[in-house]
Amino acid sequence: MTMDVTFLGTGSAYPSPHRGASALVLRTEGECWLFDCGEGTQTQLMRSQLRASRITKVFISHLHGDHLFGLPGLLCTVSLNSSPSPTQDPPTVDIYGPRGLRHFLRVTLGLTGSQLLFPYAVHELEPTPDQSPPEGQLSLEMTAESGPLHPQERPGRTVSLDVSTDCYLLFEDKRFVVKAFRLFHRIPSFGFSVQERDRPGRLNSELLKELGLKPGPLYGRLKAGESVTLESGRVVSPSEVLEEPIPGRKVCVLGDCSSVMGEGPLQACSRADVLVHEATLGDEHREKAVDHGHSTPKMAAAVARACCARRLVLYHFSQRYKPGALQRDGDEDDVEELKRQAEDALQGSGVEVTLAEDFLTLPVLLRRPQ
Amino acid sequence: MTMDVTFLGTGSAYPSPHRGASALVLRTEGECWLFDCGEGTQTQLMRSQLRASRITKVFISHLHGDHLFGLPGLLCTVSLNSSPSPTQDPPTVDIYGPRGLRHFLRVTLGLTGSQLLFPYAVHELEPTPDQSPPEGQLSLEMTAESGPLHPQERPGRTVSLDVSTDCYLLFEDKRFVVKAFRLFHRIPSFGFSVQERDRPGRLNSELLKELGLKPGPLYGRLKAGESVTLESGRVVSPSEVLEEPIPGRKVCVLGDCSSVMGEGPLQACSRADVLVHEATLGDEHREKAVDHGHSTPKMAAAVARACCARRLVLYHFSQRYKPGALQRDGDEDDVEELKRQAEDALQGSGVEVTLAEDFLTLPVLLRRPQ
Repeated sequence: MTMDVTFLGTGSAYPSPHRGASALVLRTEGECWLFDCGEGTQTQLMRSQLRASRITKVFISHLHGDHLFGLPGLLCTVSLNSSPSPTQDPPTVDIYGPRGLRHFLRVTLGLTGSQLLFPYAVHELEPTPDQSPPEGQLSLEMTAESGPLHPQERPGRTVSLDVSTDCYLLFEDKRFVVKAFRLFHRIPSFGFSVQERDRPGRLNSELLKELGLKPGPLYGRLKAGESVTLESGRVVSPSEVLEEPIPGRKVCVLGDCSSVMGEGPLQACSRADVLVHEATLGDEHREKAVDHGHSTPKMAAAVARACCARRLVLYHFSQRYKPGALQRDGDEDDVEELKRQAEDALQGSGVEVTLAEDFLTLPVLLRRPQ
Repeated sequence: MTMDVTFLGTGSAYPSPHRGASALVLRTEGECWLFDCGEGTQTQLMRSQLRASRITKVFISHLHGDHLFGLPGLLCTVSLNSSPSPTQDPPTVDIYGPRGLRHFLRVTLGLTGSQLLFPYAVHELEPTPDQSPPEGQLSLEMTAESGPLHPQERPGRTVSLDVSTDCYLLFEDKRFVVKAFRLFHRIPSFGFSVQERDRPGRLNSELLKELGLKPGPLYGRLKAGESVTLESGRVVSPSEVLEEPIPGRKVCVLGDCSSVMGEGPLQACSRADVLVHEATLGDEHREKAVDHGHSTPKMAAAVARACCARRLVLYHFSQRYKPGALQRDGDEDDVEELKRQAEDALQGSGVEVTLAEDFLTLPVLLRRPQ
């Protein structure tokens, strides 16, 4: 089962012709989960190999426009280009993000008369007051939903911090557990952790043969964790014939931040296969970065090291950093320098560093059992 | 004084990599007036020769997302890239559009914590109930501004239809008279007419020499329309020494429509130098076009003919029509065919037809006095 991450926009503050605004897609089994949706994301999607119609979930890290302004248009275009089944109801698109997102979508879709051919639900995360300076907090008056529901809006949940885990449990199913956690930024910001569940190891076919068990329904029961009884009366338990379980992969995407908050982020991102962290400015601009609620490569590296991540992916670069292909001799700002700064800070840790670029696709490989 | 029109997006419904969503700029004396602002307009501006910081007025024809979703992001980016004078207050950006626009901007800018370094005011046009089918009308509940004003929001006017002219007078100054007029669409839609005032003709320098008048302040007074008295006591009136006035130019931009409404549009667009009209689909798709509130080339041509326009510019093409440069042999839909259809309908009228493309700049030349 393949899993990969595709960056659609790696620029901060606004989209430009050489870097889109923030957006990336985690793809697995043909489903696409979109993380952030800056203006122009729908056009970036059209330029990529991904299909916007496969988006089933959207995660918005925070409400700044460069992470959000593309969402109403994306939903409209997905709808315009969809051809609903005459017999099946289209599935609901689940949208997760900070309080205020429901109101934002209701107003933008409502005032523009945007009809959608599929239902959507906004599940809001309740920030804690310490996630931003006081001036970055939205009053209840501003986020209160007013006006009629969009015809395709379904009731969404409001998710509060689970203080025992310092995380927000967004959902879990047979394959995934998805959590959010708190970050500090100019306005409340969140990170997301997608944890694939471990899967049972392969059946040891030699051993099964020795036991006289032929391929058939019993194999399936063993794989599903049930013991089976042979004709001889011998009971075979799964642990006898299954190899080590295949560890689930973990992909974590952090929104804009100058720091993580509490224990939640480190636990949710622990041993992440891929940790996507912003690095808006180089280490030499640390003060300015922090003033604006942002991180430098060294700061991102510290998070990756604390989480024992396998790979740190840097993105959300100031538009002053051109993509490598557009870099010219004498340009003052070199995005490769951001990579070097993170690598320097991670020496000896074993964490690999990748610079994201628009349209980079990064496979997330299964770990071999240990 | 140069005047030109640059198309930033000529596609309908949504932006695509080969056609931006609706936006065009009328530029005169370094000021840029933006007409519609679909998603991605700020990126298209960066790709063009225009400077977003020169935008002083924005006109939104109607509230569909492909004409509007780029506006909050554009305002934010203009602000981010501005360097306000320490001594002068920045001028207010005036934004004109249908009722509901003020609420849209207040919510989108407010919820995203978007701070602007310049003030803005939204002047709302009150639609009449016959401008759209009943389901396209926004309830007062939906458009009522709620929540606190954006810190940079200045009170805007609400402009109602002037029944004597069947138009909305948006503003007039020494150089321009700008009006809006009603169109019929799925939701209320408007067109805009920018009428440059006539300017006094040139001074006849030979005649002035004969009268013994040397270049100096008296020239300026004559040009400004004042009579002057020579030393001899002879009174010279402007009409004696001024050539014919230079007629002002007129540029008209119509939003999405399947028809114009009443006498206002034809009068406001009468003898337009440039009439920009949508042509979403070819004449062979007329029924579908009208069903969706849109026009075909023949329908646009009829408006241009009725107005005695000099030039009809077609835009807002369905994304099925690729730009000429991307057209391939065997492609079913050919945008050039839309031009031929308009030209056929305009035979003998003297109206020239232009197909807009993204980044086309069209100079608007002064007419010679007649």
